[in-house]
Amino acid sequence: MTSTVEKPALSLLGLGAMGGALARAWLAAGHPVTVWNRTAARAEALADQGARVAATPAEAVAASDLVIVCLLDHASAGEVLDGADPSGKDLVDLTTGTPEEARARARWAGERGARFLDGGVMAVPPMIGTAGSGAYVFYSGSRALFEDHAGTLAVPAGTVYAGEDPGLAALLDVALLSAMTGMFAGVAHAFALTRDDVAPKEFADLVVGWLRAMASYAYGVADHLDTGDYTRNVTSGLAMMVRGNATLLRTAEEQRVSPELLTPFMTLMERRLAGGHDGEGTTGVIDLLRVP
Amino acid sequence: MTSTVEKPALSLLGLGAMGGALARAWLAAGHPVTVWNRTAARAEALADQGARVAATPAEAVAASDLVIVCLLDHASAGEVLDGADPSGKDLVDLTTGTPEEARARARWAGERGARFLDGGVMAVPPMIGTAGSGAYVFYSGSRALFEDHAGTLAVPAGTVYAGEDPGLAALLDVALLSAMTGMFAGVAHAFALTRDDVAPKEFADLVVGWLRAMASYAYGVADHLDTGDYTRNVTSGLAMMVRGNATLLRTAEEQRVSPELLTPFMTLMERRLAGGHDGEGTTGVIDLLRVP
Repeated sequence: MTSTVEKPALSLLGLGAMGGALARAWLAAGHPVTVWNRTAARAEALADQGARVAATPAEAVAASDLVIVCLLDHASAGEVLDGADPSGKDLVDLTTGTPEEARARARWAGERGARFLDGGVMAVPPMIGTAGSGAYVFYSGSRALFEDHAGTLAVPAGTVYAGEDPGLAALLDVALLSAMTGMFAGVAHAFALTRDDVAPKEFADLVVGWLRAMASYAYGVADHLDTGDYTRNVTSGLAMMVRGNATLLRTAEEQRVSPELLTPFMTLMERRLAGGHDGEGTTGVIDLLRVP
Repeated sequence: MTSTVEKPALSLLGLGAMGGALARAWLAAGHPVTVWNRTAARAEALADQGARVAATPAEAVAASDLVIVCLLDHASAGEVLDGADPSGKDLVDLTTGTPEEARARARWAGERGARFLDGGVMAVPPMIGTAGSGAYVFYSGSRALFEDHAGTLAVPAGTVYAGEDPGLAALLDVALLSAMTGMFAGVAHAFALTRDDVAPKEFADLVVGWLRAMASYAYGVADHLDTGDYTRNVTSGLAMMVRGNATLLRTAEEQRVSPELLTPFMTLMERRLAGGHDGEGTTGVIDLLRVP
């Protein structure tokens, strides 16, 4: 039996590592896909898998009601879309960018009669279209667009609708990547400490288990921010943590490891403690990060 | 039926938050426990729960074959132990310290005819003696001591024997706390970005799930360090990550958040990239942390 239900068509502009993975996922799921890429060879490689290759961005935009953009950055997406007519289209921008860039693109689309959704892809390309990979995409902007294309958008990865403000998807994307950057910095310091004394694979088992357990720290921070009481359920107060930091720094010195990845957070803990907040954990550091 | 098997006796010096939790766990499990604390009131509070209170550290050390120390820091542990005779004893030091401090204590104990084990407690006090809390203690030093007292040591928390080098427990303890410090810094930055736009509790759910998934990054780092090939299985190369960092920094600026917790790691990524290592992930940063 062959299904006679046609899958919705879409156009995809940008076939970098992520765009290419997205195209392959939609093609594999049976969607008619029109592709465009600045370097044409990448588009032609997809023609073998059933993609229709557009000669220009304008042609790609014209080819489908649903137009997905996945380019290098906000500026290049702007250049590519410059000559196209998005009126009446549903435009989804998966290009990595800032919240303000997403809002600017939303205004651009709105002024031209297109519905708009911004997306933040929480995955690396090999996770796209792979069941159980945990990959998902934050979407924000037009809820109607999101709902009308829910099935299509769910093909390459899970979907999380974050709200009508088009900047929210980029904000959440960047916030998670920022948290990850901090974690990677901590992991780098930890391996620098242990690499000469502990088998890296054994240490990886320990640090992965530890970080997964300690990630729940974020629930405590959320409770502090929600209540405004930064002392709730604090089991190790700031004074004790600052004293612990000294042990971390002495150990780094013994192991001949630069402490530069840890000291900025430690310095903020000390500033918060000096401000008279001994009973708190580290949530108060967040207040100190605000630029006036 | 009442068991007639006596649990081994132990002495515990230091009844701060952690020492007190340890004492209560061993008392609850039926071990005869002799306690000493500089502030006697804390020791007397445990007498109601069956603890014998020693008047001096020397008396506490003399009272049991197994002597456990859990004091403020290495220096105070040294002062407390100064007048005691540890010969023939099994000394376990759970005081937080550096690897070198643990090795110094091991030499001190060895010169006085005591077996020695250092411990690094991976828990906050409320987790001690709580089944399923995930609390555990790294031990390093005398394997014979560890094995002879395995049952007693397993009462307050899980145990992980790290090796004969007495410094290993402290090294692993500090390394995990350092990794956690980095993760906490990243989480603080992420909440600073989102606190005005996303409900903290909703963001906590997202960031906890994301960090738990991304913690497996450490397995990739271990593979790089083991093989010396920092390009293996890299899906986002350093050049792309450095470009992504610019988006993180622009978003911080838009949200009026200081980037100071993220920039040191980003700077090292740029230095590594400038060194001609585009195809790598971030493992090469670890090499840059080595102090010559």
